[in-house]
Amino acid sequence: MSTPAFFPQDIIIKKRDGGALSKDEIEFFARGVSDGKSFADYQATALLMAIFWRGMTPQETAWLTDAMMRSGDVIDLRDIPGAKVDKHSTGGVGDKVSLILAPLAAACGLKVPMMSGRGLGHTGGTLDKLEAIPGFKVQLTVPEFRAILQKVGAAMIGQTPQIVPADRKLYSLRDVTGTVECIPLICASIMSKKLAEGIDSLVLDVKFGKGAFMKKKEDALALARAMVDVGKAAGKPVWAQLTAMNQPLGRAAGHTTEVIESIECLKDRGPADLMEVTYALTGHMLVLGGVAKDMAEALVKMKAAIAHGSALEKFRQMCIAQGGDARVVDDYKILPAAKKLLSVKAPADAKGFVSEVDALKCGHAIMALGGGRAAVTDKVDHAVGIADLIKIGEPVVPGTLLCTLHINDDAKGARAEALIREAVKFTPTAPTLEPLIQDLLK
Amino acid sequence: MSTPAFFPQDIIIKKRDGGALSKDEIEFFARGVSDGKSFADYQATALLMAIFWRGMTPQETAWLTDAMMRSGDVIDLRDIPGAKVDKHSTGGVGDKVSLILAPLAAACGLKVPMMSGRGLGHTGGTLDKLEAIPGFKVQLTVPEFRAILQKVGAAMIGQTPQIVPADRKLYSLRDVTGTVECIPLICASIMSKKLAEGIDSLVLDVKFGKGAFMKKKEDALALARAMVDVGKAAGKPVWAQLTAMNQPLGRAAGHTTEVIESIECLKDRGPADLMEVTYALTGHMLVLGGVAKDMAEALVKMKAAIAHGSALEKFRQMCIAQGGDARVVDDYKILPAAKKLLSVKAPADAKGFVSEVDALKCGHAIMALGGGRAAVTDKVDHAVGIADLIKIGEPVVPGTLLCTLHINDDAKGARAEALIREAVKFTPTAPTLEPLIQDLLK
Repeated sequence: MSTPAFFPQDIIIKKRDGGALSKDEIEFFARGVSDGKSFADYQATALLMAIFWRGMTPQETAWLTDAMMRSGDVIDLRDIPGAKVDKHSTGGVGDKVSLILAPLAAACGLKVPMMSGRGLGHTGGTLDKLEAIPGFKVQLTVPEFRAILQKVGAAMIGQTPQIVPADRKLYSLRDVTGTVECIPLICASIMSKKLAEGIDSLVLDVKFGKGAFMKKKEDALALARAMVDVGKAAGKPVWAQLTAMNQPLGRAAGHTTEVIESIECLKDRGPADLMEVTYALTGHMLVLGGVAKDMAEALVKMKAAIAHGSALEKFRQMCIAQGGDARVVDDYKILPAAKKLLSVKAPADAKGFVSEVDALKCGHAIMALGGGRAAVTDKVDHAVGIADLIKIGEPVVPGTLLCTLHINDDAKGARAEALIREAVKFTPTAPTLEPLIQDLLK
Repeated sequence: MSTPAFFPQDIIIKKRDGGALSKDEIEFFARGVSDGKSFADYQATALLMAIFWRGMTPQETAWLTDAMMRSGDVIDLRDIPGAKVDKHSTGGVGDKVSLILAPLAAACGLKVPMMSGRGLGHTGGTLDKLEAIPGFKVQLTVPEFRAILQKVGAAMIGQTPQIVPADRKLYSLRDVTGTVECIPLICASIMSKKLAEGIDSLVLDVKFGKGAFMKKKEDALALARAMVDVGKAAGKPVWAQLTAMNQPLGRAAGHTTEVIESIECLKDRGPADLMEVTYALTGHMLVLGGVAKDMAEALVKMKAAIAHGSALEKFRQMCIAQGGDARVVDDYKILPAAKKLLSVKAPADAKGFVSEVDALKCGHAIMALGGGRAAVTDKVDHAVGIADLIKIGEPVVPGTLLCTLHINDDAKGARAEALIREAVKFTPTAPTLEPLIQDLLK
């Protein structure tokens, strides 16, 4: 046996003592943890904790992202004409932007090669939402993905097993060793997967607030900055928008309910907050992809694509291409329906305005209904969810509808109702509304 | 399967965020890492790194020590009459104090149940030194150990596999994950093994300086304080002496050479520095064990035991009891002898005094000769070593003997000589001597 290039403990000690790792050391780690041999799991987790403690420089983070990306297949989309631009969100409650944005951006001339994840905990996942549509397949091969992208302009699938295997290994270790909430590791995990998609540029939606993974704006800013820097290092322009996630986005949360709301948006009947975020993120994509010179031009194009139905048509085409029942566009009854609808109404003493709709508690209500996933292996109930959710700033009197719960079980419905009642708070005078979109990092 | 009392990741996160673990959490960890099931190795190492980062309170350290101790057999010596007092040193170059102290303390009326380790790196181990004596067995069963302790008053053996298995597991993980140099973990490792011996009280020799594990006095003080506190928590009086280890202790380092120097000490012909440390540590044992009311009385007893030969006689009895050839007491030729002696002499421009005899470099010289152990599985050459080593403050002229190297290979001898020449430095005027014994913590 040849002598290894490094000893794992030397790399661990270097990071433990606050040093910056070299490119070769980081590559040795990423390769070794993937093959499970030259860097044992028990050494990897010690290094992960040392990284949690000491952090990583932007250069180290870029090297780690690159090494992770190269642990598996890197898709090459250069032979497909058009600008390949994707969007990634760090996740929130009611965030169905991808379902609207991908067909909208495709209708405006971009190619959107979107690989997403599943929901976990209180945040929903794009793949789960798409699977509410009967027949819709998210596990496609790369050739199938390429073909749909070329033909339709947008394809939305799950990561194939060949994409960044190092991330799956590292995430499974981080998940059980208290090393998840670490900005350079989160950054490398997200960016390695996005860069492996073969994109030309990327828009990030970094959420912060009660319903987001990052509770504090400063952490979200640091993550956004790290991801933009990694994009720069990889030669791919990345813009990161900071979006508040204190109340759910839109008025629906769940799967069936979110698919319906997404299609409503494509029919120009979407709630204002959801459309604001969708137009902003899609607009940045259009500018990055060169199909609009600025946001003003992008807005004109996007509003036309919605008004003339071309975005909805892209959604329909994508549905058909991925095996989904495209009648959903015209008939929401083909979606899984809950047994009962439960109207949650403002109590007899309610008056004034809604001051808070706690996104985390709404997420927990979805989980209580059976529409969430506590462990990766859990099945979700697509039919249950929240609709007609009241928004911060809206007036209330006794009996005002706070939301409609789609439920399959009375006891679960009661638990969800209790959580909604905790989530929604009132105030006698109209509250000052926090801006939804708070920053854009380039 | 029943739900576990804790999830490892919750314990890791608590420590990661600077919290103090509970007794139950620490016991769950110690038990789980020993059985390799409820606390996976890759979770244990993340926790070890978090402990390295955040430290442990004295209470946590005491709980960890106790939990580790109870991971295996705890020897009960209460049925053996007399005070059971042991000594532990954190290790140094030329530190053969145990070989003199154990028979000396036994001659003065104590029972010394000493379980030691092997040498690793530049510091020698008591077991290896004893094994230089033909036939001397250090791997004894607990009943054999008890019988010798009862009959002779001192027994010197290696830890049995049943003693603190958690420490072996944890140390093997720490060794490859950069988590060795961590005071609460070092403290728990040492103290769990000592407390499992069935002692009533303990004297510690915590070394600091060039040839010690702890380079800085402040670290040695912190370790000493931690160990004294753990002893208090366990209801066992523990005194810790702080001893400088910049130059080797005595004039010999190796195995055969150290055995000879130890026997010379028992014959009242030992070097001053070695006797100073031996009398201090043994004296504290006599006071702790109640056979002397203070150090003055202890000194009278110890000097009598040396002068009248009773300490040497105990050494002889222990040799016989443990299967060793007791003729060694009168005939050093029965010890493994090196092929050649190599005199290292002061160069032509040497004048003045010795200002430094770097203990670390002397330790590396022993390793260069083949008398050390780089890995736990290495065999040591008992015959090679250093004798007649010059001491700081001694006068030199060209040709003054700096040491005699016992060598089995000319090339290795040349490397060792070069290291000795680097280790020994001169100064024109007599240097101020640093006190050897610098503190005593109770």
